[in-house]
Amino acid sequence: MVTGIHEECGVFGIYTNKTSDVAAQTYVSLYALQHRGQESCGIVVNDDGVFSYHKDVGLVNQVFDKETLERLGKGNIAIGHVRYSTTGNCNASNAQPLVVRHIKGPMAIAHNGNLTNARELREQYENKGMIFHSTNDTEVISYAITEERLRAPSIQAALEKAMYRIKGAYSLLVMSPTKLIAARDPDGFRPLCLGKIDDGYVVASETCAFDSIGAEYIRDLKPGEMIVIDKNGVNSITTHCGKKGTICVFEYVYFARPDSVIEGSSVHMARLRAGKYLWREHPVDADIVIGVPDSGLDAALGFSQESGIPYGIGFIKNRYIGRTFIQPSQTERTNSVKIKLNAISSTVKGKRVVMIDDSIVRGTTSGRIVKLLRDAGAKEVHVRISSPAFIAPCYFGTDIDSKENLIACKMTNEEICEYIGADSLGYLSVESVKKLAGNSKCDFCVGCFTEKYPIEVPKDMPKDKFESKISEKK
Amino acid sequence: MVTGIHEECGVFGIYTNKTSDVAAQTYVSLYALQHRGQESCGIVVNDDGVFSYHKDVGLVNQVFDKETLERLGKGNIAIGHVRYSTTGNCNASNAQPLVVRHIKGPMAIAHNGNLTNARELREQYENKGMIFHSTNDTEVISYAITEERLRAPSIQAALEKAMYRIKGAYSLLVMSPTKLIAARDPDGFRPLCLGKIDDGYVVASETCAFDSIGAEYIRDLKPGEMIVIDKNGVNSITTHCGKKGTICVFEYVYFARPDSVIEGSSVHMARLRAGKYLWREHPVDADIVIGVPDSGLDAALGFSQESGIPYGIGFIKNRYIGRTFIQPSQTERTNSVKIKLNAISSTVKGKRVVMIDDSIVRGTTSGRIVKLLRDAGAKEVHVRISSPAFIAPCYFGTDIDSKENLIACKMTNEEICEYIGADSLGYLSVESVKKLAGNSKCDFCVGCFTEKYPIEVPKDMPKDKFESKISEKK
Amino acid sequence: MVTGIHEECGVFGIYTNKTSDVAAQTYVSLYALQHRGQESCGIVVNDDGVFSYHKDVGLVNQVFDKETLERLGKGNIAIGHVRYSTTGNCNASNAQPLVVRHIKGPMAIAHNGNLTNARELREQYENKGMIFHSTNDTEVISYAITEERLRAPSIQAALEKAMYRIKGAYSLLVMSPTKLIAARDPDGFRPLCLGKIDDGYVVASETCAFDSIGAEYIRDLKPGEMIVIDKNGVNSITTHCGKKGTICVFEYVYFARPDSVIEGSSVHMARLRAGKYLWREHPVDADIVIGVPDSGLDAALGFSQESGIPYGIGFIKNRYIGRTFIQPSQTERTNSVKIKLNAISSTVKGKRVVMIDDSIVRGTTSGRIVKLLRDAGAKEVHVRISSPAFIAPCYFGTDIDSKENLIACKMTNEEICEYIGADSLGYLSVESVKKLAGNSKCDFCVGCFTEKYPIEVPKDMPKDKFESKISEKK
Amino acid sequence: MVTGIHEECGVFGIYTNKTSDVAAQTYVSLYALQHRGQESCGIVVNDDGVFSYHKDVGLVNQVFDKETLERLGKGNIAIGHVRYSTTGNCNASNAQPLVVRHIKGPMAIAHNGNLTNARELREQYENKGMIFHSTNDTEVISYAITEERLRAPSIQAALEKAMYRIKGAYSLLVMSPTKLIAARDPDGFRPLCLGKIDDGYVVASETCAFDSIGAEYIRDLKPGEMIVIDKNGVNSITTHCGKKGTICVFEYVYFARPDSVIEGSSVHMARLRAGKYLWREHPVDADIVIGVPDSGLDAALGFSQESGIPYGIGFIKNRYIGRTFIQPSQTERTNSVKIKLNAISSTVKGKRVVMIDDSIVRGTTSGRIVKLLRDAGAKEVHVRISSPAFIAPCYFGTDIDSKENLIACKMTNEEICEYIGADSLGYLSVESVKKLAGNSKCDFCVGCFTEKYPIEVPKDMPKDKFESKISEKK
Repeated sequence: MVTGIHEECGVFGIYTNKTSDVAAQTYVSLYALQHRGQESCGIVVNDDGVFSYHKDVGLVNQVFDKETLERLGKGNIAIGHVRYSTTGNCNASNAQPLVVRHIKGPMAIAHNGNLTNARELREQYENKGMIFHSTNDTEVISYAITEERLRAPSIQAALEKAMYRIKGAYSLLVMSPTKLIAARDPDGFRPLCLGKIDDGYVVASETCAFDSIGAEYIRDLKPGEMIVIDKNGVNSITTHCGKKGTICVFEYVYFARPDSVIEGSSVHMARLRAGKYLWREHPVDADIVIGVPDSGLDAALGFSQESGIPYGIGFIKNRYIGRTFIQPSQTERTNSVKIKLNAISSTVKGKRVVMIDDSIVRGTTSGRIVKLLRDAGAKEVHVRISSPAFIAPCYFGTDIDSKENLIACKMTNEEICEYIGADSLGYLSVESVKKLAGNSKCDFCVGCFTEKYPIEVPKDMPKDKFESKISEKK
Repeated sequence: MVTGIHEECGVFGIYTNKTSDVAAQTYVSLYALQHRGQESCGIVVNDDGVFSYHKDVGLVNQVFDKETLERLGKGNIAIGHVRYSTTGNCNASNAQPLVVRHIKGPMAIAHNGNLTNARELREQYENKGMIFHSTNDTEVISYAITEERLRAPSIQAALEKAMYRIKGAYSLLVMSPTKLIAARDPDGFRPLCLGKIDDGYVVASETCAFDSIGAEYIRDLKPGEMIVIDKNGVNSITTHCGKKGTICVFEYVYFARPDSVIEGSSVHMARLRAGKYLWREHPVDADIVIGVPDSGLDAALGFSQESGIPYGIGFIKNRYIGRTFIQPSQTERTNSVKIKLNAISSTVKGKRVVMIDDSIVRGTTSGRIVKLLRDAGAKEVHVRISSPAFIAPCYFGTDIDSKENLIACKMTNEEICEYIGADSLGYLSVESVKKLAGNSKCDFCVGCFTEKYPIEVPKDMPKDKFESKISEKK
Repeated sequence: MVTGIHEECGVFGIYTNKTSDVAAQTYVSLYALQHRGQESCGIVVNDDGVFSYHKDVGLVNQVFDKETLERLGKGNIAIGHVRYSTTGNCNASNAQPLVVRHIKGPMAIAHNGNLTNARELREQYENKGMIFHSTNDTEVISYAITEERLRAPSIQAALEKAMYRIKGAYSLLVMSPTKLIAARDPDGFRPLCLGKIDDGYVVASETCAFDSIGAEYIRDLKPGEMIVIDKNGVNSITTHCGKKGTICVFEYVYFARPDSVIEGSSVHMARLRAGKYLWREHPVDADIVIGVPDSGLDAALGFSQESGIPYGIGFIKNRYIGRTFIQPSQTERTNSVKIKLNAISSTVKGKRVVMIDDSIVRGTTSGRIVKLLRDAGAKEVHVRISSPAFIAPCYFGTDIDSKENLIACKMTNEEICEYIGADSLGYLSVESVKKLAGNSKCDFCVGCFTEKYPIEVPKDMPKDKFESKISEKK
Repeated sequence: MVTGIHEECGVFGIYTNKTSDVAAQTYVSLYALQHRGQESCGIVVNDDGVFSYHKDVGLVNQVFDKETLERLGKGNIAIGHVRYSTTGNCNASNAQPLVVRHIKGPMAIAHNGNLTNARELREQYENKGMIFHSTNDTEVISYAITEERLRAPSIQAALEKAMYRIKGAYSLLVMSPTKLIAARDPDGFRPLCLGKIDDGYVVASETCAFDSIGAEYIRDLKPGEMIVIDKNGVNSITTHCGKKGTICVFEYVYFARPDSVIEGSSVHMARLRAGKYLWREHPVDADIVIGVPDSGLDAALGFSQESGIPYGIGFIKNRYIGRTFIQPSQTERTNSVKIKLNAISSTVKGKRVVMIDDSIVRGTTSGRIVKLLRDAGAKEVHVRISSPAFIAPCYFGTDIDSKENLIACKMTNEEICEYIGADSLGYLSVESVKKLAGNSKCDFCVGCFTEKYPIEVPKDMPKDKFESKISEKK
């Protein structure tokens, strides 16, 4: 809410050896992954080859009720998905998982990420007479798999070949009548992990989903790895020679839930570290350190621990403001942030305050939050950002925008500091951000901070022609 | 409601030379065509190449409200669709029009009918790596068009070729960024007609849609004809050498609205004739003739006119019972027809009654209606059916069922008469039913009455494998 | 729909000797009474003294679903209500039955009618410190009963006394923890009848409700009669010395369902008679007689029978246009009646047509319907109205409006005829309208046709001050 | 959520000197007060004497949308209400504000609190023939005011007299056609404060509502004070000789938002103090202090500050679990708290943990939270509760339950400690809890901790007879 940067999706899959409540388990898990996508969601249940699904625009608690869950019924495999997209394209036909029939029967796909060659592939398929119902990369992926399936002896063999055709970021779940397959792109941009339940296995974007259903975390999928879960158990296939991978570092800074563990590294600990490094890089004489809720709280605590400056609770975030909040036109003049966030005067009054946030995009919101503190009596406000400044768009599954919307592309640090009304401003260095997940076995993508990407990116990132041509209005 | 036989669909299209309220015109027209399909509906608006659409499960008044109509906005072309299907498969993803993107851009399709080679074509496409999102014939048609479009110089050229690949019944609307195309299968199973408005043209399943928006009826499309409406006006293309065509005779008996004119013949007049012929074929000594509302009323009047037996109003139909009526379990023992239909005692008490209905499917409902009359005091009840007995399924776009559900496949006329509790029973002859639309220029399909079809039909009519495998539960 | 005149309400009550599905029976019966009120509805179930209820704005099929019916559960007594009111005051808090607690426990009231001294009583109660939640007469009635209950030995004794305080039109159901009481005002303005079921009794505004649940009609309540149904059976109490009563004649002309029998007289037969008398009073040389659906159909048949001019089906009414229909602004210029009603050209083309309708209010709609016929090719259109002209408002439970909205207060017959574009116009005489229900035992209120009312009416009929002051916006 | 103790209500009122967006301001303020009541809400707008309202079951964002807000329109006075009640009685007819008409015109009332003599008053009014629509105390209050208004020269004079008749806890807003009146019971059980906006005044349960709309806090109403806001400004009336008052101490511990200031004392600071005192009373050797979100966080920080034990973030609370969450039956065996709350293993693993929560009711939830920590690897778990143990019910507007549901009435501290699986357990003393709001000018009600109440309480607290007799099922 505060940053305006969004993860695109979260995925969950479950395989059990006997018919069970896979829909209910998926439902609970999607709640745990809701922070990864609040636009639409869906569940597909596989009951011995018969696929049933329900998906729609809305939060998990809006899309699913007792009746829809009951109608999904029981099964032995299921996959689920939560999705975010910018408001304009928020429509039911883009909700996932995608359920299609191809030559070998039904198939369901749930996808987190963004292909860099989607447009190219789409054109190839169109030139063969294929039609597209949506603007989802997922539909492109389904064609890539289906095309290979014509020759390949199995769905996993088809997916393996398809993984050499599609490029970019993808953490993917594919459900066939008898199998649950999970795959992660060779660079491992997005997380994906495997867990164990009594009677089978689960796969999820983050470990917090496992905790919610009492599953045991086994391991993260390796970059380029594909695992096939069926009646023979779990089978791993390595593609792309096992590259080391470059996970999105912003997963640690903001996207993931602090209670998740990604690539062996606790997200909460990574954020504490961000605070520590921030102090080391940008120390300041102050009376109290506060975090902007929710994602700034951990880094604020780390900053406090390292600096010795007392930690304080400086803001209350209104938990009831949701998508349906109507900004009354009459109050638009006023500080709209006030409705969502309120400063605690008794914490900051007369004090020199260090305020930790995870990022600055356009600067408007940051400026309003600083003003909240000044109005509440803060004597000084020193802003510290627990990541480097955004200077380039993301091509790998988030909505970090084009340069014209990024304040750091247009102003110097000093200018930003003045613009947001802070007494001082410090960003975490790129060097430090790479050290947040200290013990993790992978490298990191920091493209949005450096404009240097691990893999080739499209020259331009035009909005899909089709997207502007067809809009479902719901 | 009473017969349990359903038309599958109704279509409407509009082309105007300047941007106008095409969504509103389509909305009003779909109301007029609602009797052709009550399951789902949709509208696609084309504003200079930008397609906007809204479709969902429900009646027109449930799916569209002020907000959705406003969001569809203005445009210069639009198509709309109303759809019926059996309850089980009633889901949003099967709602039409179908909107896809193919190699040349966006395309929208609305379809009334049923292909006889859909399964065969589907398999061919799957073998080329194509995927299917639904079990609609419409998706098969979109592939047939798209495949040809790879080579054809225009959308109409592609559709023309596709019309030689797809077989069966189809009255089709195709909207491209700049054109509205309407096509009717070479046998003309389903109606489709062209009309004129101030600033352009309209196409609809029935003329009653024209009346509702003040459009002027021009003519019916000919069997096998395709017309292209664009900035150059209306252009006609004849395919399949201009066969004579065999329209579904049941359109006159039951499906179409009495105020429509199909193939130059008034539906109301056809039904009056059905009553006249019925009297000639099955005269009876009686005091009053009544029709089962709504579709039996016209034939009852014709029977009265020909016989001289007074016409009476024998039933009141409850106008408020809809899809959402909950049959209370406790009253199931009782005559459930009573809730929907009530006999007017003062009309029938102590009288010998001729009761006209359009058809008998399983016989249960007919039996209950006869009982209503007896309970209301009728001395004798002579049932006359304004069409021949169903003895075979329909393969051309209606849900006339397999033989095991048709009472006339299992009983003789005498047995049926006894089963429904009538004093006498008479069906209209096949010979007479063919004369209903006396002056129309085409022949008729009477396959459901004779098991002799105008074109080859599939040996079996299995439920699609996919259909039972994927069910969207909404 | 076509006339724009509305009945205000319908009521239903059921008493059974053992716990049963009283909610389901009431639900089915409210469907049968839906024509008496389409704004809001409600059901109160009494399970051995515990009252449960559900009521809301909407049709029966919108307000009640499986879940709400199940939650109402079983019981031994229940009452239900359907309500109409002008759009502005359509809100949930006015929905009935009214459920309150007074000194002796809970009480539920359902009311059809209109008090003439409501304002006077309301002021009296306010002067004693009473508060009002709504602008319903029903709340006034509940105070009248409660006030008497302080002294009276039983609820029926209290109601009996209250019946001498409240004046005007009321057909009333009162449910106490152990009793179902029905009462009809001493003039019997609105119908109310008693029926028998296996295990108890039912009371309803019209007999069509009895038919829908298989109940047996016993008799109409007499004007001024009160009946108490409890474990001792049915007990009748006569108040006001058994006046003869003057039922609203428009119940026969338009409000009631044709299959109902009121005061021993069939509504359908009354309408046939209206047609017969119309011919006698206003004969015309013509080729065909048609009725405006639905309420003009019976009179048209009577006119045809008496005159020998053939009866025809001249219009199709769209059954799917409901309250939610959005009149697209662009089509407002055009004939809006076209969307709801279409003329059957083959019936009227080139003919001299007699068109029967039940009433003319402002004349606008009638004019549009006449135009439909002319556009469809009618050579002459002779309008015959099956009731006298409205010249005065109704104070007894319908919304027949103030004089400025009644065309007959402003124009002569000739002027109206010209205004609506008819070739001739004839109204039924007051004398004849009183003979419609020939064999009924009561007199008739014809105040809206004569401005002579059976009882004193308020001098002015101002909108309630409160009504304009408090509006619930839902 | 975690404690299971609920405040009953929150109120807001606004008076402006000219017609303005009072509905929008009230809407925003109710968001800020949402934590005080999540069952139902409502807004009444007064536009120069014309009252418009909307209220329903649901959260503010569910009950109000763009359309409902627009329909409420503009005005110069408005009041709003959020309400909590136990699930069973959650129905629309109990939603507030209550809008009624009495002898002098319309009146709207919003109420936070609980009367101790409601039943007695209700019986008195029933004996005078009054009827009740709900089981709200608010309806009783409206009768008390109306009764006095018969003799009193003004609404404020009537309310003043009524304040001597009603007993118990009430923070009350009354809106007449021209005035906004606020009143607080003589003991000041519930908070109520006055603020200033550009063009008028606002009144709210908590100051956080003022912050959200940019209003300036002026002061709290004094116990027994009534203030009248009209075109003459603010007028204060003192009743009951200005008692000192005993505000509910649990407002500071749990109910109020930490950013609110009540009786001059910051809620956040009060909770920090609770943590400090807890350490002094129940010190423990430990490695980390964590709070149960959200209400335990402040006290945990205070405990850390006082003890020097590091503060940690030990839990993540799922922000998306709401009222509509469906507990899948299959997972009921498992720890249901897991879905709402997850422990951060990296914070607690291998550590001796102090866990701060605000209260223990039945002990079940506390036990599950302790288990979460153990499962996450905590070596020791020391539970500290930032209030004394509940041993008696509350009669003043919260749902602190009867003794049989309070674990502290049935077990010793040691037994509770064992029951919840903690290594040690310490409650804050009654003495300390009274010092939380150190600088506040009032005394405190600690009846739920001591069974000694500031005023007489009813002998028994029976469920209202009517409540069990009438249940609206929605």
